[in-house]
Amino acid sequence: MRETLAEWRPVIDEAIADLVPREIDADYLATFFGEPTYEYDPDSIQRALSAPLWELLDRGGKRWRAVLFLVFIEAFGEDPAEYLPYACIPEILHNGTIIVDDVEDEASIRRGKPALHHIYGQDVALNAGNAMYFLPLKVLTEDPGDLPAERRLAAYEMLMYELNRTHLGQGMDICWHNESDPEITTEQYLEMCACKTGCLGRIVARLAAIITGQPDDVERAVARYTELTSIAFQIGDDILDVEHSLGRAGDFGKEFGNDIREGKRTLLVIHAIQESDPERARRLQAILSADTNTDAEIHEALSIIEDAGSVADAREHALELAAEARAAIDGLEFDDETTRKLHEFTEFVIDREE
Amino acid sequence: MRETLAEWRPVIDEAIADLVPREIDADYLATFFGEPTYEYDPDSIQRALSAPLWELLDRGGKRWRAVLFLVFIEAFGEDPAEYLPYACIPEILHNGTIIVDDVEDEASIRRGKPALHHIYGQDVALNAGNAMYFLPLKVLTEDPGDLPAERRLAAYEMLMYELNRTHLGQGMDICWHNESDPEITTEQYLEMCACKTGCLGRIVARLAAIITGQPDDVERAVARYTELTSIAFQIGDDILDVEHSLGRAGDFGKEFGNDIREGKRTLLVIHAIQESDPERARRLQAILSADTNTDAEIHEALSIIEDAGSVADAREHALELAAEARAAIDGLEFDDETTRKLHEFTEFVIDREE
Repeated sequence: MRETLAEWRPVIDEAIADLVPREIDADYLATFFGEPTYEYDPDSIQRALSAPLWELLDRGGKRWRAVLFLVFIEAFGEDPAEYLPYACIPEILHNGTIIVDDVEDEASIRRGKPALHHIYGQDVALNAGNAMYFLPLKVLTEDPGDLPAERRLAAYEMLMYELNRTHLGQGMDICWHNESDPEITTEQYLEMCACKTGCLGRIVARLAAIITGQPDDVERAVARYTELTSIAFQIGDDILDVEHSLGRAGDFGKEFGNDIREGKRTLLVIHAIQESDPERARRLQAILSADTNTDAEIHEALSIIEDAGSVADAREHALELAAEARAAIDGLEFDDETTRKLHEFTEFVIDREE
Repeated sequence: MRETLAEWRPVIDEAIADLVPREIDADYLATFFGEPTYEYDPDSIQRALSAPLWELLDRGGKRWRAVLFLVFIEAFGEDPAEYLPYACIPEILHNGTIIVDDVEDEASIRRGKPALHHIYGQDVALNAGNAMYFLPLKVLTEDPGDLPAERRLAAYEMLMYELNRTHLGQGMDICWHNESDPEITTEQYLEMCACKTGCLGRIVARLAAIITGQPDDVERAVARYTELTSIAFQIGDDILDVEHSLGRAGDFGKEFGNDIREGKRTLLVIHAIQESDPERARRLQAILSADTNTDAEIHEALSIIEDAGSVADAREHALELAAEARAAIDGLEFDDETTRKLHEFTEFVIDREE
């Protein structure tokens, strides 16, 4: 199997292009979506679906969900090359959530360029993002792996379970942004991450386990591994946003002080509010709750977070989660090479620079 | 079976409340969505999901998708009361698309009150709408009808087929709004309706056929019936928007000249552009393409549409579709009572006042 993420990207992108070509025509539409009752307009579907999807994919993204899926496929003794269409499922879902989240958060920048709704309009961006929730799930119906019916059903039921919880997580996160003084426990923050980020990770692992017919305990173990790794990834993201804003990390592809502007209640914020003296804690809450912030206010919030030792605390949390993730797959009899890759991955999610 | 839509509404709403209670607590979340990994925040999920959903449902809506589903269930010889949770699937999906469409179209009014994103914020409204795409599909996993696995799989595959085409239809519609001079054929307009509105109708019929185990030709016939009826419903909607704006119909729950403000290319608009003299056709295009319109411009556009005889033409199209819908189920051996209901329904969608 290819070794680095960079080597995999063109292979994954080719598989995605088989599902959503860069140039859409009437033949593709009839084949993939079914014969029209009257007459499709391929030109508008090109602009409504294919253009936004490829604009986002061509900007970058690590495709780690697809690659991790293929690592599991290989670990389960199957040939990754035969399961490429399935690897696209979590990848397209993830990119769909990015487009929708950016509309919800009114983000201006994504992967170093204007967020998609600023280029295509909110209506086109949103519909493309939503289409990307359903489009990849057709792979199971197309059934390129010639799977038994019970595995296809199990995959659909798993996807519905996880995609429902994804929206619970996003709902918790958004509601907290909008409140002036939300009382959030660390456990609730971790649950939000487990739902919002973890469920997409769980899809990666469970899909690989289900379509290759693994026993339930193996499916549960790899689901737990990716859930915990995804939570660590989310905390890594929160740390990166602060580090980047403090000028200590590379180009993150987002605005300076992005999370603070959005009023996000991250693990760092929850910790800083608990650990700072009451006056500074109130000040941090006030900055997060304001509709707009000056750069000076962003710097002030960052100082409060830094002085409380919240970056170090979050890092420690992430490292613990990564250790738990590694422990979750300890009982599985993976070969050394797989175990090495899966262990390395739990480190990568925390120590990445972008 | 209950006779009128008004009699059914409380029964349907009770079944929806079993899926999404008005008051959400930790027990419900653990039962419906699965045990949390850490700890849910029921209070924020109440505000993010249950509040917007019930705000929209309590404003009205005819629940005809749920009722039509139950008419089919009874026609197939089963007891409607046993299939109420499944009747909620198309109804919740439909209300989810309303919330999302209103964000995409930047609508201000829905069912006579502010559109949901004006009350809850765009982020909460959107996430609630999207959650309503996945939440009802869990009914198939919950499996209250104790269905054979192959029917559950067929239902999931059908839903993925139809929900994919729904997004194609919305994509075509949105792209046309955004263009200054889109060239749209009547066939493409009908396809947009077949995808955007028809697919949700097809879900109603196909779901009833699949879960009661009907043969393929019966499923195809009822799907065709609801697809055609839904297109007629959409054309009826377009006519109502014009009639209401001309002061000839009752309160439609939307703004005066709503479709013209949005730049919608309806069947009436396509006809008026084809039939008007070139100068007036260009003027109609210009008004539809403008970012904002004065009331005088709306009146001018309505006059061009009226003078071209486009209302009468659209009505004729809708009546033809209704006749085709009735013909689609002619070969099925439904009892007289069912046939009467299904025939009446094709008239209701065109002649309704709101």
